[in-house]
Amino acid sequence: MLLPELATRIGAELSDPDASIDITDVCALSDASPCAVTYVTAERYRGVLRLTNAGAVILTPDLAPDAPCPCLLVDNPTLAFARAIELLRPRTPTPAGRHPSAVIASSAQIHPSASIGALSVIEDGVQIDAGVEIGPQCVVQRDSVIGANTRLVATVTVCERTIIGKRVLLHPGAVIGREGFGFARDGARWVRVPQIGRVRLGDDVEVGTNSAVDRGALGDTVVGNGVKIDNLIQIGHNVEIGANTAMAACSGISGSTRIGEGCTIAGAVGMAGHLEIGDDVHFTGMAMVTRSFEEPGVYSSGIPAMPSADWRRNVARFRHLDEMAKRLRQLEDRVAKLQQAQREQAD
Amino acid sequence: MLLPELATRIGAELSDPDASIDITDVCALSDASPCAVTYVTAERYRGVLRLTNAGAVILTPDLAPDAPCPCLLVDNPTLAFARAIELLRPRTPTPAGRHPSAVIASSAQIHPSASIGALSVIEDGVQIDAGVEIGPQCVVQRDSVIGANTRLVATVTVCERTIIGKRVLLHPGAVIGREGFGFARDGARWVRVPQIGRVRLGDDVEVGTNSAVDRGALGDTVVGNGVKIDNLIQIGHNVEIGANTAMAACSGISGSTRIGEGCTIAGAVGMAGHLEIGDDVHFTGMAMVTRSFEEPGVYSSGIPAMPSADWRRNVARFRHLDEMAKRLRQLEDRVAKLQQAQREQAD
Amino acid sequence: MLLPELATRIGAELSDPDASIDITDVCALSDASPCAVTYVTAERYRGVLRLTNAGAVILTPDLAPDAPCPCLLVDNPTLAFARAIELLRPRTPTPAGRHPSAVIASSAQIHPSASIGALSVIEDGVQIDAGVEIGPQCVVQRDSVIGANTRLVATVTVCERTIIGKRVLLHPGAVIGREGFGFARDGARWVRVPQIGRVRLGDDVEVGTNSAVDRGALGDTVVGNGVKIDNLIQIGHNVEIGANTAMAACSGISGSTRIGEGCTIAGAVGMAGHLEIGDDVHFTGMAMVTRSFEEPGVYSSGIPAMPSADWRRNVARFRHLDEMAKRLRQLEDRVAKLQQAQREQAD
Repeated sequence: MLLPELATRIGAELSDPDASIDITDVCALSDASPCAVTYVTAERYRGVLRLTNAGAVILTPDLAPDAPCPCLLVDNPTLAFARAIELLRPRTPTPAGRHPSAVIASSAQIHPSASIGALSVIEDGVQIDAGVEIGPQCVVQRDSVIGANTRLVATVTVCERTIIGKRVLLHPGAVIGREGFGFARDGARWVRVPQIGRVRLGDDVEVGTNSAVDRGALGDTVVGNGVKIDNLIQIGHNVEIGANTAMAACSGISGSTRIGEGCTIAGAVGMAGHLEIGDDVHFTGMAMVTRSFEEPGVYSSGIPAMPSADWRRNVARFRHLDEMAKRLRQLEDRVAKLQQAQREQAD
Repeated sequence: MLLPELATRIGAELSDPDASIDITDVCALSDASPCAVTYVTAERYRGVLRLTNAGAVILTPDLAPDAPCPCLLVDNPTLAFARAIELLRPRTPTPAGRHPSAVIASSAQIHPSASIGALSVIEDGVQIDAGVEIGPQCVVQRDSVIGANTRLVATVTVCERTIIGKRVLLHPGAVIGREGFGFARDGARWVRVPQIGRVRLGDDVEVGTNSAVDRGALGDTVVGNGVKIDNLIQIGHNVEIGANTAMAACSGISGSTRIGEGCTIAGAVGMAGHLEIGDDVHFTGMAMVTRSFEEPGVYSSGIPAMPSADWRRNVARFRHLDEMAKRLRQLEDRVAKLQQAQREQAD
Repeated sequence: MLLPELATRIGAELSDPDASIDITDVCALSDASPCAVTYVTAERYRGVLRLTNAGAVILTPDLAPDAPCPCLLVDNPTLAFARAIELLRPRTPTPAGRHPSAVIASSAQIHPSASIGALSVIEDGVQIDAGVEIGPQCVVQRDSVIGANTRLVATVTVCERTIIGKRVLLHPGAVIGREGFGFARDGARWVRVPQIGRVRLGDDVEVGTNSAVDRGALGDTVVGNGVKIDNLIQIGHNVEIGANTAMAACSGISGSTRIGEGCTIAGAVGMAGHLEIGDDVHFTGMAMVTRSFEEPGVYSSGIPAMPSADWRRNVARFRHLDEMAKRLRQLEDRVAKLQQAQREQAD
């Protein structure tokens, strides 16, 4: 693809309109090759930029003076580079059709443009819309609906009655709609409360590898449009997540918590159940969320790692922090009395 | 089902013995419909209760005066409601038989009343008892035993020689009996110590989605009757868990730790190895368990999330907490001397 | 196997060269039987050792005087015992060949000595080397390479273009090479940045159950020779892990972090992205790693669990730790002034 065409298709302005290099690939800034386009996102890579051998570079105008090659000027280099990858390394979609080894219930409604991979199982009453790609070894249990152009990469399990939107991407090992963790006490024993709600995933949702989204107890677990869920994440029953919220790996959201739109939840965050998290709330890694946070903002917790010897000493003191605070208060009183006495003496 | 029959079958007392409404479904308190039964568990829902349109409501006698509909009076509304769901929304068990696509070793002993789902694999020497339901795409490796009426929902992996009790429920992606994490040092290298023990799951156990229960190194990993394990949980080799203990998602138990009966372990709790946890011990979410807790009680750790700016300031101080404690001690000494001097002066 | 032969084959010195017991099994120290060999690793088991009924025991020379049976003297009993297990309880490898139910692309190159299990899927362009064992229900996606004598136990997913070394062991549910969590902002929306790098696993690597190793964005995610990864672990895109590093369950490493050789990472550790962790760095359980640690050493964080009432009081004080530190500083000033005044008075 000639550079001017690439510029047009990714929405960039070409620094040198006459530069008509043929760009055939993408690459990183440091291992760039003359036929590839790269990108740079931050001031701190200015030095690497000066040395790049790339054929062209996507960047913001302020970095352009340091580029030794034609520039594709944009506001958002990462976004433009994502588009360049899609153009230069397009994914080949699986051709429509059903692999002969797939086990497909006769009552399933499958659009002719959908593809069903090897050894997948599609149960009774499932509806699969246009352009859906079901990879190898997926299971879609009864009465689930998979919206148009959604893709189950491989080994995904969609439990019964799950509703999945359009252009959703489900990664290997994801399990959507299993019966959530609901029990009643019967003396010492736990008795399962059947979970008869569903999971509804909006459009453009992603769920990562080995993540779990449990179905609702009575109502539904709802994941809004554009929500991105990384690997090894637990979403409990009846959780609701607002549009475009993103969650990094290893986090867990307990049942019935509601999270707003546009939130970011870093890795290994834990949230208690029945909380209300507002829009534009951001949690840093390993945050322990035990109460509602309705105001936009950044919230954190946890003690960053330090040499173990220091940690042990400080932790030992933490165990007596309340007592320490009381001693400090008493000391303040004693000092106040001493000051008072001294003033009286001075008078 | 007429209300009096429902009352009898869930063990409730009907507030109005003449109320013979036909109840056909269950629903939540807020979206109740006249043909459905709902339930209420807590004082704080009294307001919602007054407005419900449900045909009947399961509750404790103290809430009955606020119900605008016939009441099913019980001590434990959640338990009674669980029974109502089972009556009104019964799960249809998979019919007995073997799906033709399943791969079943000829030496496997499968009770005729069991069902084996599509594309499941049953290896040599496996024993599957009466009423077992193996869903689609499960693997049961050689010489494992699956007790009566146990259900593997889908995509469950049971590794070799695992012993599973009766009425066990294994959710999609659960892996029972993989070879645990045991190594010997050989200079800089790690050499695997073959793990030749087993996993034994008791009766009425549940293991959630993508959870792992590793098999013992020499002896067995033992999960007691009625233990409920949520999603994404790690149970290390040779762990023992007592009857009716429940664990919420994202927790991990390191090797050889023993947990008593009737414990509750909230989400994302981590336990070190070789600990002894007594009966009726309860850990709150994200607790970091580094020592044994043999006495019944509630134990906690972790710093709840706060605005990041506050967190940063407090964490910076935590790093010097030991020094702060020493300064406090010194200050107490100095103040004591000042008081002493003042007293002497006053004398 | 006669004891002298066992001694030779595990590299041990036999305490009594004439002891020619027939050893047919291995067992734990406490439930030892006269035909089995056991082992003891630590001083604290000396009492149990004295009572053992084992036919022979592997131990270091200092413990030998307490053994009531012939001793196999070694420097590293765990390592020698691992070898004894391999000799006495050898695993039967799956015979070479392709299970007829496997779905294998015609363009896949599979060594005749490899075995492909029931209902596994091998896609186009895959290369599988000598002695590889692919268990049941695995998926190996297009253009991946599996090195000699590697074993995929069961239900493992290897995504496209993954490069796996020799003698690698992948446990059920592991997912290698899924497209990592990379997005560009487009206003409020997230747009996927296609991840076109790969995962490269070195020789002798293990990846545990339901762990995920994501492929690189542009370059590769690289796991060095001999790295051992336990269950439920997340390895983000472009992470690099040095040789012989071991990671316990439930940990997560964010994108582009580099970890050195010979590190140990205990359970449930979380690491931020773009960090540099040196060789021989050790993190204790649940450590929160938010900065680079380039020096060898042991690092820790977190607050160990305590009775909840104590925890609540101490946590309440933690929220005001910065203020407490300031009050302490002020108090020090006030006391200094009091002391100064007293000295002046005394003069």
